[in-house]
Amino acid sequence: MGMTMTQKILAAHAGLRNVVAGQLIEADLDMVLGNDITAPVAIQEMTKIEKKQVFDKDKIALIPDHFTPNKDIKSAQNCKCLREFAKEYEITNYFEIGEMGIEHALLPEKGLVVAGDVVIGADSHTCTYGALGAFSTGVGSTDMAAGMVTGKAWFKVPSALKFELTGCPDRWVSGKDIILHIIGLIGVDGALYKSMEFTGDGIKNLSMDDRFTMANMAIEAGAKNGIFPVDNKTIDYMKGHSSKEYKIYEADVDAEYEKTYNIDLSKIRPTVAFPHLPENTKTIDEVGDIEIQQVIIGSCTNGRLEDLRAAAKVLDGRKVKKGMRVIIFPATQDIYLKAMEEGLLSIFIKAGAAVSTPTCGPCLGGHMGILAQGERAVATTNRNFVGRMGHVESEIYLASPAVAAASAVTGRISGPEELGL
Amino acid sequence: MGMTMTQKILAAHAGLRNVVAGQLIEADLDMVLGNDITAPVAIQEMTKIEKKQVFDKDKIALIPDHFTPNKDIKSAQNCKCLREFAKEYEITNYFEIGEMGIEHALLPEKGLVVAGDVVIGADSHTCTYGALGAFSTGVGSTDMAAGMVTGKAWFKVPSALKFELTGCPDRWVSGKDIILHIIGLIGVDGALYKSMEFTGDGIKNLSMDDRFTMANMAIEAGAKNGIFPVDNKTIDYMKGHSSKEYKIYEADVDAEYEKTYNIDLSKIRPTVAFPHLPENTKTIDEVGDIEIQQVIIGSCTNGRLEDLRAAAKVLDGRKVKKGMRVIIFPATQDIYLKAMEEGLLSIFIKAGAAVSTPTCGPCLGGHMGILAQGERAVATTNRNFVGRMGHVESEIYLASPAVAAASAVTGRISGPEELGL
Repeated sequence: MGMTMTQKILAAHAGLRNVVAGQLIEADLDMVLGNDITAPVAIQEMTKIEKKQVFDKDKIALIPDHFTPNKDIKSAQNCKCLREFAKEYEITNYFEIGEMGIEHALLPEKGLVVAGDVVIGADSHTCTYGALGAFSTGVGSTDMAAGMVTGKAWFKVPSALKFELTGCPDRWVSGKDIILHIIGLIGVDGALYKSMEFTGDGIKNLSMDDRFTMANMAIEAGAKNGIFPVDNKTIDYMKGHSSKEYKIYEADVDAEYEKTYNIDLSKIRPTVAFPHLPENTKTIDEVGDIEIQQVIIGSCTNGRLEDLRAAAKVLDGRKVKKGMRVIIFPATQDIYLKAMEEGLLSIFIKAGAAVSTPTCGPCLGGHMGILAQGERAVATTNRNFVGRMGHVESEIYLASPAVAAASAVTGRISGPEELGL
Repeated sequence: MGMTMTQKILAAHAGLRNVVAGQLIEADLDMVLGNDITAPVAIQEMTKIEKKQVFDKDKIALIPDHFTPNKDIKSAQNCKCLREFAKEYEITNYFEIGEMGIEHALLPEKGLVVAGDVVIGADSHTCTYGALGAFSTGVGSTDMAAGMVTGKAWFKVPSALKFELTGCPDRWVSGKDIILHIIGLIGVDGALYKSMEFTGDGIKNLSMDDRFTMANMAIEAGAKNGIFPVDNKTIDYMKGHSSKEYKIYEADVDAEYEKTYNIDLSKIRPTVAFPHLPENTKTIDEVGDIEIQQVIIGSCTNGRLEDLRAAAKVLDGRKVKKGMRVIIFPATQDIYLKAMEEGLLSIFIKAGAAVSTPTCGPCLGGHMGILAQGERAVATTNRNFVGRMGHVESEIYLASPAVAAASAVTGRISGPEELGL
């Protein structure tokens, strides 16, 4: 029996010729990630270990992105803990405000993850790096602690679902719409502990930013990881960002998949996930008249340059509706600068949006845009659970940057087509 | 006995020919201001009044600037309260994220305050508008509530101190250095319940932004208000921003001042207020070696265009010290856009600073840059009380934008001259 792409990466990192779904293995780690919420807990766990050490100071990334710039004294203390740990253990990849960004946008941008890597991160959206052809997955803080010390983690080898993508998406259909469509299809537990392996000749029509968004939300279908094959776009991206050696793994032709889904990208419409689960999807044609008060464009899911370009295309020369709060979060400082240089930030400000520092911000109900009782937001983020962005009686509608921007203009959930675009 | 400039404005608004220091009067209000912290309390107070009304929907300004974009559910609820009140009473000057900014920068920019006005605001730095030749002062939320309903407020007519300014400040000496120098001279209670009336031919050498900064910090010497005479710069500013009619008041030649201070602006050096009072001033030549971890440039005191230009002049082509957190807060959306168009924001990002949405942020320990235990910040804000920016064991050093920017580069309190500027 052949192996899936994921299984091949895991086998290689476990020093095994072959692995099968369900097998417990211990794999070498190429990168261990933590943030200002999860890493302090991991650091606390490390104090319980007798021989305090880190396995490789170059293979740990500590990113204070969630409650920064420091929201309050508690978050300031957490960041201080991270900073002091990074200093004591001479962690190479610790990034301070001004040089950083949201972890899952930052790591690829800084070239810290490449194809073939095994990465764990104490953050559920660590699965993002599957876009690069890496195996990456979220873990708890104690697993992160063990990973930092030993450079290893145990995994139950996942079985897999295959998503055979064909066709070319329409102009206003992005990776976000595709992954929302898929989650709508299979449900939030549709890929529970499985790999979502994307394949097919439709992939060539997806930009790297599309792929990052799709791999990022694999966890929203319950997946262990999401992964894309490595093609020229991937290689170009890695060459542009990293000096690390990459390794390309391909699924065996006889690899076993629990199920194969055929997705014709040309048939997908802009898609919105209604409260309170990412699986509650409707196409833009089915949304009806939903008035909103806030629009969030950003996050590890949709804060990249292409996302901002899509939003700017919609907002250019337009004004957000009077009274609408629109907050835009470029995912990294580099994206912020590039968006400024391209004139995108200027379009946003002139349209009546506010532009924040890179931060996870309101996505997880952190800060910088929390909802009051009864308020509704369209957000390009990844989760719309009850109370996720504030009050338990608030609502989040997940959408693409283009739909979010169009909704900012009309004041209700709208697609760009409604604006004649 | 003649009247001071402040007394003349108050007399005219009380319908009296003459007032004297200590007299209790009731004055008509031209503007009543509240923010997302204080206005909800005022609105709550208003529910106790039988006849609910506002005296003039055009003369109330409600600015959600302190904990916005909403820091948490509580601040979201407060902003919602403000928003719903503004809607119910059709308040003209309610500003949402995307069209707003820090109240004391926003009101002059939007032309809502002009020379000769009497303004109360439920925020201590309401005294800022004295730069325009208006009488403005901070009040509590209950006074704000009464002001919104009746359009009147009672005042005890203040006595006055005269600050006779002569000479021209050196290149790196700004309004912030001058007002810190003065507070160092007279102490934080040096002007308790008095007017600080600035006069003298040195004023022509001060920009409007210098004057806003100086009037803004009058409260830090305990003053009821700070006020500047109206000159061509003031008139140009008002013509550029407002269609309101202004009225110029001048102190009588025989006005009584408790004391006159002669300040030679050419003698003032860049000045820093050490913890934990604005009166603990040292010149930049006396500061010694104080290592810092954070720099905040912004606030109602120093978030205007000229402030950002000064900081950019220092940071242009330089890098902030590795590990330094530098957060820059343009005071309004308009300032943000202009700073972007002038290339200032690009300089900041390239130097390794982060640029926030306009918000009061960390100045009052709100959010977006709170300090941990033992941390030190240089800030262009207005107060360095114990715990003001976070942990009770953190420290704030108040300085000008130029000094703050130079300190960001060296990692300790430094003037621009140290960088050869």
